Amino acid sequence: MKTISILGATGSIGTQALDVIKNNPEHFRLGAISIGRNINRLREILTDFTPHLVSVQDESVVKDLTSDYPHIEFTYGEQGLLDVASSSCDILLTAIMGSIGLKPTLKAIDNKTTIALANKETLVAAGDIVMRRAKENNVSIIPVDSEHSALFQCLKGENIKEVEQLIITASGGSFRDLTREELTHVTLKDALNHPNWSMGQKITIDSATMMNKGFEVIEAKHLFDLPTEKIQTVLHKESIIHSMVEFIDNSMIAQLGNSDMRTAIQYAFTHPERLHKNNPLKLSELHQLNFKPMDFHRFKMLKFAYDALEAGGTLATVMNAANEFAVGQFLQGQISFLEIEEIVERRMMMHDNIQNPDLETILSLDAQYKSNMR
Amino acid sequence: MKTISILGATGSIGTQALDVIKNNPEHFRLGAISIGRNINRLREILTDFTPHLVSVQDESVVKDLTSDYPHIEFTYGEQGLLDVASSSCDILLTAIMGSIGLKPTLKAIDNKTTIALANKETLVAAGDIVMRRAKENNVSIIPVDSEHSALFQCLKGENIKEVEQLIITASGGSFRDLTREELTHVTLKDALNHPNWSMGQKITIDSATMMNKGFEVIEAKHLFDLPTEKIQTVLHKESIIHSMVEFIDNSMIAQLGNSDMRTAIQYAFTHPERLHKNNPLKLSELHQLNFKPMDFHRFKMLKFAYDALEAGGTLATVMNAANEFAVGQFLQGQISFLEIEEIVERRMMMHDNIQNPDLETILSLDAQYKSNMR
Repeated sequence: MKTISILGATGSIGTQALDVIKNNPEHFRLGAISIGRNINRLREILTDFTPHLVSVQDESVVKDLTSDYPHIEFTYGEQGLLDVASSSCDILLTAIMGSIGLKPTLKAIDNKTTIALANKETLVAAGDIVMRRAKENNVSIIPVDSEHSALFQCLKGENIKEVEQLIITASGGSFRDLTREELTHVTLKDALNHPNWSMGQKITIDSATMMNKGFEVIEAKHLFDLPTEKIQTVLHKESIIHSMVEFIDNSMIAQLGNSDMRTAIQYAFTHPERLHKNNPLKLSELHQLNFKPMDFHRFKMLKFAYDALEAGGTLATVMNAANEFAVGQFLQGQISFLEIEEIVERRMMMHDNIQNPDLETILSLDAQYKSNMR
Repeated sequence: MKTISILGATGSIGTQALDVIKNNPEHFRLGAISIGRNINRLREILTDFTPHLVSVQDESVVKDLTSDYPHIEFTYGEQGLLDVASSSCDILLTAIMGSIGLKPTLKAIDNKTTIALANKETLVAAGDIVMRRAKENNVSIIPVDSEHSALFQCLKGENIKEVEQLIITASGGSFRDLTREELTHVTLKDALNHPNWSMGQKITIDSATMMNKGFEVIEAKHLFDLPTEKIQTVLHKESIIHSMVEFIDNSMIAQLGNSDMRTAIQYAFTHPERLHKNNPLKLSELHQLNFKPMDFHRFKMLKFAYDALEAGGTLATVMNAANEFAVGQFLQGQISFLEIEEIVERRMMMHDNIQNPDLETILSLDAQYKSNMR
């Protein structure tokens, strides 16, 4: 029996993680959770689960919750996230969105808690620091992203030194088949309509801009500690092959399956074992898989991510913060779709890169570049 | 440094195995080899390699060879195969064609020699006996067939109890796109023209009849010890995915690569490690992979193999022997393509199945059913 705590329990990953726990009551129990402002959803969760600790975003709702659920401890705000991260559990699922996940993740690592990592911004903003801290504490970081879970599974039993390259597949997002010219006119509604995966709003936009794939390249670099040139991407519109590894002997291993995030979430919870699950990719439904080289001109944000990896230092931190700002503006209808990459590019250009930054520098740059600095 | 001996050194697999050894002189050296009647090819081999023992089919050529290569010991016939199998080496590659590989394989197992198994007829004819003997002697049987090497690699680091099914891919062979009616008119030349793989004559015909895929199902059953219903096949005309494993948690792992048998041969030699090799599947060449359910009416021979597995006992032995006879007749122009399956079906029908046969029973049935018994 493993106790799972969740940062971001009402989001898309958090909700699916709760499904996994609910479907396997003999294997998992819920520890502590954090949520944002979705109190209605929290009340639904509390009909099915009894976490011992719940953190909410706003102090104002704590009093009512405490009176309604007297056997549960409530906490709030940034300190609340740290409280959840430092409460005792076997695995902390970091399913919170954005760089706000960074400090609680480090806290859990210091507590020797295994991290099931779904908050990719943590590794994009501060991958060197997080991975170093995990190594020092001998803590496993198990990826939950479908691509990195795929790579992690393909590498099972293998020697990382025998890897020729990691090949991350990309569905291409909502606008895969549009030219750059056609992107000028796309709306928020278009952007939120992902062809394969049902996900949160920010990651759906990040998929459409290909920033998400850029994040994944950076995430893979940190998780698997390989040179940048060994991390490739390929367009694969069906999202059936979730990623693959090519070895030095020309053998390639791929992981495939349905577009069901619960597979990767469950694997992060059960690794190195596997548990039954009832949503197979039926062989009779497997018809055709297509692959196309990735176009760095069409998908400029992916190029930015490779540039950031190449430059090292704080450039990825800035890219991530600028993207968080720009996507927020787009979701609020303030800017057009193509302006997202303009903002990210401009903020990356104006930044004087700092090598080997400490955590304070990263957090300060993160705050600065995700603010309305124009 | 591993010493590799080869049964069937002048065949397609044998020749490619010699390439692997030649390309990695710091890792492999050649021990003993057997060949059939291709003395010219043997002389070519002996310009590149110095095996300490060579077995040929016919005694008549031994005298000349001994005088030309005084530092090499020559032997011949069935005893010669046993001599090669029992000479000291790290790995014996069984690349000989047909059930004649059975006795030398058992001999090598008794000698505690790791088997790199390319002679699938050994497992088809006597899988229970061979695998039991390997288990008793704690000997590894490493598959060389591209499909089984793929499954073996997909299972690396995994627990066989967590396997939902093995999925063996089938290119469909030379006549994939023909109806049964159209098969009436096909010629030997048509049959020998495999779309993806360059292989020996018998296995190319076995691919066209789908008997080869049936053998592979039986081989997989013995190698991985799973119930028959967990071994599936799927048509995949590109032969890029060499096979895949579905786990109980809906995750599937596939192995893919070029149609280059040297990858599987080399992996059998290096397992659990991998060595550099210079024939990658370029990502830019990966365009489209197609899959179609397997039609048991169109491919009757595959159905026969499942029937044989289901029945157990000596039925697979008889099927294999009847097929060896029928393919021989077809290669000599004695019968038509569709008569191959007629002969196999008839001989399987006339056989009174014997459960738990001993080796003598198997060898005697093998001899009987591959003779001209009409």
